Amino acid sequence: MSAGFAWGCVAAVQSSASVRTAACVTQRSCGFVARRRVTVAVRPAASAKSVMMADVEELKKVVGYKSVDDYVSSGMVVGLGTGSTAYFAVERLGQKLASGELKDVVAIPTSLRTKEQAESLNIPLVTLDTHPKLDVAIDGADEVDPALNLVKGRGGALLREKMVEVMADKFIVIVDDSKLVDGLGISGAMPVEVTPFCWEFTLNRLKQAKSLTGCDAKLRMADGKPYVTDNDNYIVDLYFTEPIKDAQAAATEINSMVGVVEHGLFLDMTTAVLIAGKNGVEVKLK
Amino acid sequence: MSAGFAWGCVAAVQSSASVRTAACVTQRSCGFVARRRVTVAVRPAASAKSVMMADVEELKKVVGYKSVDDYVSSGMVVGLGTGSTAYFAVERLGQKLASGELKDVVAIPTSLRTKEQAESLNIPLVTLDTHPKLDVAIDGADEVDPALNLVKGRGGALLREKMVEVMADKFIVIVDDSKLVDGLGISGAMPVEVTPFCWEFTLNRLKQAKSLTGCDAKLRMADGKPYVTDNDNYIVDLYFTEPIKDAQAAATEINSMVGVVEHGLFLDMTTAVLIAGKNGVEVKLK
Repeated sequence: MSAGFAWGCVAAVQSSASVRTAACVTQRSCGFVARRRVTVAVRPAASAKSVMMADVEELKKVVGYKSVDDYVSSGMVVGLGTGSTAYFAVERLGQKLASGELKDVVAIPTSLRTKEQAESLNIPLVTLDTHPKLDVAIDGADEVDPALNLVKGRGGALLREKMVEVMADKFIVIVDDSKLVDGLGISGAMPVEVTPFCWEFTLNRLKQAKSLTGCDAKLRMADGKPYVTDNDNYIVDLYFTEPIKDAQAAATEINSMVGVVEHGLFLDMTTAVLIAGKNGVEVKLK
Repeated sequence: MSAGFAWGCVAAVQSSASVRTAACVTQRSCGFVARRRVTVAVRPAASAKSVMMADVEELKKVVGYKSVDDYVSSGMVVGLGTGSTAYFAVERLGQKLASGELKDVVAIPTSLRTKEQAESLNIPLVTLDTHPKLDVAIDGADEVDPALNLVKGRGGALLREKMVEVMADKFIVIVDDSKLVDGLGISGAMPVEVTPFCWEFTLNRLKQAKSLTGCDAKLRMADGKPYVTDNDNYIVDLYFTEPIKDAQAAATEINSMVGVVEHGLFLDMTTAVLIAGKNGVEVKLK
């Protein structure tokens, strides 16, 4: 494949792990301070960290289940997202098909991981080729702005997620409230899927793009090597110190770049966002 | 890789070979009728077809050599295109470096084929990572319209060609006059490089795109299997019965599609076109 191409653009690669870890810690700390205090009070034996994580999992489960309960009916074609929140939507769909509460549902997974989970739950799977129109797609997000635009793809499945979700009549986003941002790009990486050929050149062009002024760009690494997507491409993660000023302009400029396959800005796609917080689930509609 | 992905969108594949062959024959017939008659008169022993082909090769050589003679100086970083016309530019550059007429030139090839040819001629090669700005790039084209916009990529190297050529101060296009068209898309395929994942879905979206109304779309085949690019992607060839009405709109719409990696419309990139015809070489400047 291209990555080993003898005349390719192999060069020194900086790991972005430290930056991403730091970003995640900040993000979680900010979103869960209040909840953490409350929960510690009722579960005194657990460490603060383990309690916080349990809370986060519970919130993800609540919105994951609710998305299926509220938006999936018998006979539908359903897109199944990827990630720790979407996991619970897939789980719920499996339960309701097994119990007979839902019938004749077929699903399109957005990653190998989701496919494996769905198969283990006996959810009938199809593809976009046979079912190019979906009734609903359900997925998590890394960031949600006030206009319900999203950053997605920190889990690496952005291309397949976007391909499926752009074809859904309704796109339901499920998050906990730590994912809400005032402007996109600020809580962590905004991923861009690029061709391995001359990735460093593409990375530098992204850094210099007018609509992305001020961003830093790092090749995503895994086990000391470039992270490879399900589509055999690389991911360049963009980091911002200020929110992206004009996300639509950024999307257009990134799309026009040779070497870019897809990006993590999901604009004007969302139908509703289910947001789990300490006071329950809030629904925001477009 | 994705092509063999178990849950991918494998489906019946139609070969586009017959269509493309027909298009090429038409294109050559139209462009060389006059020249063919003249040449037959002076070379009576050869068959009409072989004489025509010799003529075409001679024309390609003339513009290939002239592009290097007129636009390459010592010390330059030069992008080397791919295809039967660019072949002669590479040949000429090798000659001039070997003779010492040119010195300190480094080149960036746009394909494995060109790289191998350049290496065989001892042309020093570099990459975009070390040399992101080029003084000049020289390449052929499949179509040239009156505004010097191009269709390229019928040879399959569109992504690497565009990546290199978009970074050149001057982009010199070398063609014989059969490549001149009144509007883009009419003489044969307009290629689009797509991810193997759900290629048929992407193909259908291309067919239905507003800016590409009336096009037919076929997966490019080679030896009974999907043709695979240097970047491990597929090519969808678009065929039009009328010229593309608004090439810029088409480029933007294609770029915005999930699953599209790059397309063969090279717009607003050309500095000059060297056109070989029966009366010699004509130069058109932007």
